Amino acid sequence: MKFYDLELSGNCYKVRLFAALSGIPLDIIPVDFLAGEHKQSAMLALNPWGEIPILEDGEVVLRDSQAILVYLARRCAKESWLPLEPAAMAEVMQWISTAANEVQHGPNAARLVDKFGYQLDKATTLHTSERILGLLEQHLCEHQWLALERPTLADCAVMPYVALAPEGGVSLEPYVAVRAWIERIKQLPGFVAMPGV
Amino acid sequence: MKFYDLELSGNCYKVRLFAALSGIPLDIIPVDFLAGEHKQSAMLALNPWGEIPILEDGEVVLRDSQAILVYLARRCAKESWLPLEPAAMAEVMQWISTAANEVQHGPNAARLVDKFGYQLDKATTLHTSERILGLLEQHLCEHQWLALERPTLADCAVMPYVALAPEGGVSLEPYVAVRAWIERIKQLPGFVAMPGV
Repeated sequence: MKFYDLELSGNCYKVRLFAALSGIPLDIIPVDFLAGEHKQSAMLALNPWGEIPILEDGEVVLRDSQAILVYLARRCAKESWLPLEPAAMAEVMQWISTAANEVQHGPNAARLVDKFGYQLDKATTLHTSERILGLLEQHLCEHQWLALERPTLADCAVMPYVALAPEGGVSLEPYVAVRAWIERIKQLPGFVAMPGV
Repeated sequence: MKFYDLELSGNCYKVRLFAALSGIPLDIIPVDFLAGEHKQSAMLALNPWGEIPILEDGEVVLRDSQAILVYLARRCAKESWLPLEPAAMAEVMQWISTAANEVQHGPNAARLVDKFGYQLDKATTLHTSERILGLLEQHLCEHQWLALERPTLADCAVMPYVALAPEGGVSLEPYVAVRAWIERIKQLPGFVAMPGV
């Protein structure tokens, strides 16, 4: 499976992290993001959205890190990462949705401003970050993992941009339970890091 | 199944729409959103995020419209709405993620500003709306449905806030294929509308 990747992207890291934790080999193809390679015709043919990551597995071509996580979990991993039982799958899905929504527009967006110079309203990104970190802290004070009391796709989807929050000027200092959860993920067999995590 | 609902919420409508299309009975419980009932203790006990919709099915309590859609599809509907085959599930999931990300922060956010007075950066919401509508138009010029060439959970997740875009000052006039797709959804057996759709 070819994985079109940027080392500094938390969305790409979600996939590399899950692949490492569940022993899935990926053929990593670095994309020259700063040169705009993801906006050029060869990459746009794979993903008209002009974004990475992209996964290519024979005829299957997927955009969106959340969808790629779901694909790899269904295709290659133990069912415990994304169970089929309705309530269990939905519990994981709540957090996959959170990764695409609040985490994307909170800590990820704050980092895009500070680290990559994106023109976004920084105050809104900080407000969204504080709200989601508060909710995560509240949840993780009572749970070791985001869903199902064990590591799931939920943790792989949400953790990267939470751990990278300081690169967007969002301190994790007040969030004791969040930091402990990140450390638990780092202790999982097969864990891989990325710069900033 | 109890469904805590606001008639004017596109996120609630996603669930009402899918339930209607797939013949799932819901016990609708209206929440007095304007009076802030969703932020009061009884509702916060169900969902600490202080948001609706919420689904309550015996012991199972779920927040997040995307997660609720997945739950209902797995629990009550034909598998065609959310197939288990990895590539098919991931194709649907791309659009569920889009609903939580670009659609939420584009047309939904623009409507929150205009219709409910939210303090968001309107220019950003319009920019995100134009981008996602352009990508949808491009996709729907070549496809009748968002995923798998048939109605799936993807259409139920994405359509509501796209159809409501004019309530946020985003015209659908330039998007011929998007409007045709909305009309196709309206022709599905069991379709229900909401104010503004």
